[in-house]
Amino acid sequence: MLLVEVSMSPFGKGESVGKYVARSLDIIDRSGVDYRLNPMGTVIEGEWDEVFAVIKRCFTRMSRDCNRISISIRADYRKGAKGRLTGKVRSVERRLKRRLRTT
Amino acid sequence: MLLVEVSMSPFGKGESVGKYVARSLDIIDRSGVDYRLNPMGTVIEGEWDEVFAVIKRCFTRMSRDCNRISISIRADYRKGAKGRLTGKVRSVERRLKRRLRTT
Amino acid sequence: MLLVEVSMSPFGKGESVGKYVARSLDIIDRSGVDYRLNPMGTVIEGEWDEVFAVIKRCFTRMSRDCNRISISIRADYRKGAKGRLTGKVRSVERRLKRRLRTT
Amino acid sequence: MLLVEVSMSPFGKGESVGKYVARSLDIIDRSGVDYRLNPMGTVIEGEWDEVFAVIKRCFTRMSRDCNRISISIRADYRKGAKGRLTGKVRSVERRLKRRLRTT
Repeated sequence: MLLVEVSMSPFGKGESVGKYVARSLDIIDRSGVDYRLNPMGTVIEGEWDEVFAVIKRCFTRMSRDCNRISISIRADYRKGAKGRLTGKVRSVERRLKRRLRTT
Repeated sequence: MLLVEVSMSPFGKGESVGKYVARSLDIIDRSGVDYRLNPMGTVIEGEWDEVFAVIKRCFTRMSRDCNRISISIRADYRKGAKGRLTGKVRSVERRLKRRLRTT
Repeated sequence: MLLVEVSMSPFGKGESVGKYVARSLDIIDRSGVDYRLNPMGTVIEGEWDEVFAVIKRCFTRMSRDCNRISISIRADYRKGAKGRLTGKVRSVERRLKRRLRTT
Repeated sequence: MLLVEVSMSPFGKGESVGKYVARSLDIIDRSGVDYRLNPMGTVIEGEWDEVFAVIKRCFTRMSRDCNRISISIRADYRKGAKGRLTGKVRSVERRLKRRLRTT
């Protein structure tokens, strides 16, 4: 499975793009994929086709009223691995034997 | 202030790099900067010099025993803005009038 | 159309991953999409479906013998824009009234 | 040495940000660092301090008249390696025994 962090913002809509980000999160949240939102993007866990289908829906929606869009996607594939939305952070905390800031 | 997400991993140390990631988090956590760890990286809030000083310390430590290192950094600068480690997520939730998955 | 820069590397295959990068470039070069290779990635120009279909083929090939893969994708969508694989660099050079280093 | 690809753009300045990108390239080109411009960013080769000093100068200049700035940085460190601005592409071409599109 893949962990995929995505960030998508329009240019030419002013400095505040929260309205457009919220629409993407609405799509992601309703899609049924497992995800976690953080201050710089949204991390989705799933197989290639399901993750990129959701990202494409966010892009299609945004491109309806935004003429220029910047997208950043980083993916970490690990064969057979699941539950890494919570597992990777826990693993780091176990190594350090203390809690880290996560929310 | 800046929000800066950083992810740093060695090549040539096998598929599991958690040991090296934990060392970076130890440096970040003890440094005093405000940060949040997520499954794909660590988001730090601060001014340019303080954030990049911490990132450089992580790199210097990792390069002591790793010959090849891949680093990804994404920054979002907003003049005068503070508290965005929690504020950006809250702002999206307010627009959607519901809680999103964040931890 | 989109400009999409992609970089894809396996973990756990040692420090030198050129063999795997070359396989991806072979797929991209034979696919018929317009692209430019640079020292940090490959920039492809096209519509969403055609670009991501090629990237998925690179991923599918790499995942046949690599258990962990790191992928970075950055996209710049601009409605109606074409020819930006060469046009964006030319535009910067025109503004500065001199040639820049590009190859 | 490091290969560092940087891309820096302002939000809130409209869809066309070429004017601001050109100012960064002017700084990079005059700085004396070795670099290559591509359609999605600029790849700089150098040691950590020299590369990030140049990037900081681009940021400082842009933040004088831009209130919101998005920055993407990807770095590939390889101990003892030099000349990779041209060497990495050549290496892929040698493996495939043919020229690829690069300019």
